[in-house]
Amino acid sequence: MSTFHTSWQVRFADTDPAGIVFYPRYFDMVNGVVENWCAEALNWSFRKQLLEHKVGLPTVHLDADFLNPSFLGDELDITLQIISLGRTSCTLSIQASCKGEKRFIVRPVLVFISTESYKAQAFPDHIKDLMSQYVIDDE
Amino acid sequence: MSTFHTSWQVRFADTDPAGIVFYPRYFDMVNGVVENWCAEALNWSFRKQLLEHKVGLPTVHLDADFLNPSFLGDELDITLQIISLGRTSCTLSIQASCKGEKRFIVRPVLVFISTESYKAQAFPDHIKDLMSQYVIDDE
Amino acid sequence: MSTFHTSWQVRFADTDPAGIVFYPRYFDMVNGVVENWCAEALNWSFRKQLLEHKVGLPTVHLDADFLNPSFLGDELDITLQIISLGRTSCTLSIQASCKGEKRFIVRPVLVFISTESYKAQAFPDHIKDLMSQYVIDDE
Amino acid sequence: MSTFHTSWQVRFADTDPAGIVFYPRYFDMVNGVVENWCAEALNWSFRKQLLEHKVGLPTVHLDADFLNPSFLGDELDITLQIISLGRTSCTLSIQASCKGEKRFIVRPVLVFISTESYKAQAFPDHIKDLMSQYVIDDE
Repeated sequence: MSTFHTSWQVRFADTDPAGIVFYPRYFDMVNGVVENWCAEALNWSFRKQLLEHKVGLPTVHLDADFLNPSFLGDELDITLQIISLGRTSCTLSIQASCKGEKRFIVRPVLVFISTESYKAQAFPDHIKDLMSQYVIDDE
Repeated sequence: MSTFHTSWQVRFADTDPAGIVFYPRYFDMVNGVVENWCAEALNWSFRKQLLEHKVGLPTVHLDADFLNPSFLGDELDITLQIISLGRTSCTLSIQASCKGEKRFIVRPVLVFISTESYKAQAFPDHIKDLMSQYVIDDE
Repeated sequence: MSTFHTSWQVRFADTDPAGIVFYPRYFDMVNGVVENWCAEALNWSFRKQLLEHKVGLPTVHLDADFLNPSFLGDELDITLQIISLGRTSCTLSIQASCKGEKRFIVRPVLVFISTESYKAQAFPDHIKDLMSQYVIDDE
Repeated sequence: MSTFHTSWQVRFADTDPAGIVFYPRYFDMVNGVVENWCAEALNWSFRKQLLEHKVGLPTVHLDADFLNPSFLGDELDITLQIISLGRTSCTLSIQASCKGEKRFIVRPVLVFISTESYKAQAFPDHIKDLMSQYVIDDE
């Protein structure tokens, strides 16, 4: 079982008048982490998905806990794992921390669709094989 | 029991290469709806909260269902109600539809804090009275 | 000669840790003003341009003066006029003020293109006629 | 004379329904490049400026040329140089290219201010010394 790791720096553009990350910016970050994971771990960049294969991974549901505020200049350590992997969809767990303090957990449900029909379809086998390494082992 | 109503137009800036709203933009919208509600229904604008009273309403949890895609130019009808109203926090239900088709439901949990101590505190009585009109009646 | 008028409220999402509008957000606003003008004054919404006619109005140049800071809750009065109107492009002047104080002036140059070929093309006559009302009269 | 180099990947969040970078996102990028330069080249992060020294570098003017469109997944090579360096302000030249093709040039004018008084003030000597390495030599 693998965990995908990346880091993300909190920038001026992410922060609000209270001096902390404005939470909608976390979802730009979460989307960027999924984008990195697809490109780096699955060799399946968003460009390739959208332009070559006319497919996409829209988010149909999510829940999020914002546990502690993040501040300008913080370097967030982010992990991505798969909570459940189905035929046409998956539920991810994306967690961010800074110097050991948890900042957020977001669990998005992504569905694999054709961008032409907007219908769900089965993940390609070779992609599902790569994805399956990131499934959390419950035992 | 009241429902707060507002509308929001899907703009070019909200849409992605697939031609639909990029979901993090929905949270800018959700935050803007809360901002409108505070200003218009509670006479308690974010400016007043942050600058005069040094308080704020950060989101500590949320869950969201994205039910159907929204497109450039769509005019979304948005409603806000309160699912539960506690001493220092509340859970909202914010729903968007377009021509009768549901687009999203977001349920954010907001905590009322001092922006100086970052500690939760009780809602002021006159604010809580105004808020209580928006609590969903389950019976 | 006409001037297109619109207003724009400075929202929490627009403001930065210094409590003022983060300037890239002004360009979202400027793009939104052009979007409103196309839809309301020219009956030529971005949706119609992009989806029905496969044309668009990308910005190829701009200059901007940020004259005074804008704060959370400010209601900006915005005007749009045309500085010069050519065969395939136009230069706009978009100015914002609040209670008589100037906030910014942005002068974008927009080129009318096919989104299929990315080539510039002449404005349709009926659009150019409507646009010509907004040209600033120098005399 | 030095040039500050950085790179920036065009992400899904940066691109619009036409499949290219929405130009306001370039200014997030430009601000991020200035942020990197301050932190890495001047040892003067935005966090340090804002929180420790109560100073900032707002943009008071800029002009921009958008020369060629950028696409999802493009890796932009970005350079930063100083066109002119005054007592309280500087004019930067920030250029982006991809595989040798120019994408944009932005020339922002930044003023060094106190965030308490909003008044311009002289750059500290040790900062100005570091900045002076990045001034373009015209000869």
